[in-house]
Amino acid sequence: VQPFTNTLAESVGAWGEAKLITQIRRWLGSASPASPFGVGDDCAVLAPANRRQLITVDPVIYGRHFDDTVSPLAVGAKLLKRNLSDIAAMGGRPTAAVVALTLDPLVSQTWLRQFYRGLARCAADHRVPIVGGDIAESPGIFAASLTLLGQATGPRILTRVGARLGDRIYVTGVLGGSLASGHHVKFKPRLAEGAWLAAQPEIRAMMDLSDGLAKDLPALCPPGCDPALDPAAIPRRPGADLAQALTDGEDYELVFVLSGRVDHERFELAWSRKFPQVKLTCIGNFVTNRTRSILAVDLKSFQGYEHLQPRRSLRR
Amino acid sequence: VQPFTNTLAESVGAWGEAKLITQIRRWLGSASPASPFGVGDDCAVLAPANRRQLITVDPVIYGRHFDDTVSPLAVGAKLLKRNLSDIAAMGGRPTAAVVALTLDPLVSQTWLRQFYRGLARCAADHRVPIVGGDIAESPGIFAASLTLLGQATGPRILTRVGARLGDRIYVTGVLGGSLASGHHVKFKPRLAEGAWLAAQPEIRAMMDLSDGLAKDLPALCPPGCDPALDPAAIPRRPGADLAQALTDGEDYELVFVLSGRVDHERFELAWSRKFPQVKLTCIGNFVTNRTRSILAVDLKSFQGYEHLQPRRSLRR
Repeated sequence: VQPFTNTLAESVGAWGEAKLITQIRRWLGSASPASPFGVGDDCAVLAPANRRQLITVDPVIYGRHFDDTVSPLAVGAKLLKRNLSDIAAMGGRPTAAVVALTLDPLVSQTWLRQFYRGLARCAADHRVPIVGGDIAESPGIFAASLTLLGQATGPRILTRVGARLGDRIYVTGVLGGSLASGHHVKFKPRLAEGAWLAAQPEIRAMMDLSDGLAKDLPALCPPGCDPALDPAAIPRRPGADLAQALTDGEDYELVFVLSGRVDHERFELAWSRKFPQVKLTCIGNFVTNRTRSILAVDLKSFQGYEHLQPRRSLRR
Repeated sequence: VQPFTNTLAESVGAWGEAKLITQIRRWLGSASPASPFGVGDDCAVLAPANRRQLITVDPVIYGRHFDDTVSPLAVGAKLLKRNLSDIAAMGGRPTAAVVALTLDPLVSQTWLRQFYRGLARCAADHRVPIVGGDIAESPGIFAASLTLLGQATGPRILTRVGARLGDRIYVTGVLGGSLASGHHVKFKPRLAEGAWLAAQPEIRAMMDLSDGLAKDLPALCPPGCDPALDPAAIPRRPGADLAQALTDGEDYELVFVLSGRVDHERFELAWSRKFPQVKLTCIGNFVTNRTRSILAVDLKSFQGYEHLQPRRSLRR
């Protein structure tokens, strides 16, 4: 489905800003709180936060994060889910979102309604109010940027820093083939898993996988170490080969580090009781950069997703 | 100064994403806190907030909010100041910002450095850390969207709701001619004034002026009332006529409502002692919509800035 229409009467430009905002609030329904806690004043008002907070921002742009093969319902949900995955990666829970639209006035009313309905449904599922936003026009474009605020679910936030020599590396789910399989819009952000992991003191570091393991994992690696990954252990989506599992990106899975000093079988048992539906795989551990086995995967030979490079395919 | 270059080697595309992020952090300097309180993890971590919070989002887009006549330093500052004006309008103070860039890889390195230096200088002046962001590419565009988080400065937040029949309407500064005079980039957000006003119980409602008084003021008007404005009282920028003062937009001044029951001369004296440099004007009051004088300004005959309408001139 194309976001744009050639018929002015069916475009958001025919409405103008005031009517468009009214419509957006209608489409968002219960996901749009009453002013001043939502749209309608200079700022939205949010409750005080007694725990540390989290903030992240990610967009969806036509031609980059989605194309005509993706339904507007799925695009709207993806916009929120991309950001939820970042909150999950720190072990947080979402609290509020704002959405900045940049669009051509010829964006179709129907398309945009479906986009906001997809966003609203996802927001309701995760109890995230959409408290504000902005609308600006720019020719030939549909871009929506969502800023998501969150809060720690407990005393601890998991960051990318904390792994040590000998720690074990785990990933949730399977990797690769996200675009081809539609996973890039169908995925469920790992919020419950992330929050539970943040409450386990033996978990030392965590992040989500968005650009592919080969590009993302080095961010968890302690100084002087390398990840020693068993190529056979990397969990792949059916149809994806090793290179795709390492570099396709948009996996939206969690990768985290378990202390090498604890009983990993006990941890794995606890996981499988808590999340029986969610595959968990130990893919290797951190070794000193002189001892890495020649059988291990050399991540440097794989290139994860590179932003700001000219290309034709649809990618973030 | 043009944001784009034709020389690939001088463009941000020549750097790629990782180097660009490194450069942005360098340009932001002390405005960019260390991870996890800034750029470098899945989310940025923010302190708990013991008061109610505020959130707002506004962009700057090339060809819409600025053109080649505006220096990149001024564009970067304007991006933050537009949002600061919204925080000021509720009587808050800013606490943290994130910036989402959407740009053509041919944006010039030099231009973007100046843009971020302007942003960094303004952020330092207002002690607002830039804690995160996102970079996405899209052909032919430079757009930056800033989400600003804030906090109440006291127990009270001023909203647009609260004015009553007989209340007096005030504006700070002068109105009109913002683009022609350069005020749209030179303005100082009225943060101190907004915070002080929120602490005065006799102030009942407030907003900032961004689309022009004619379009914005109705949002403060109590049900069944109309604003009765004295045309001669509307404070105009030198060179601006009444229509321009009412409709030009981008004034970034405060308009607020004083209870009609209090001694307004006493309030005005307190203002002039607290803010001797800032002009304050009573432009009228709220009357029932049957009693409005035929001498008063008929705001409906003036049209403030309309978004999403095709036009040629540079405007938000």
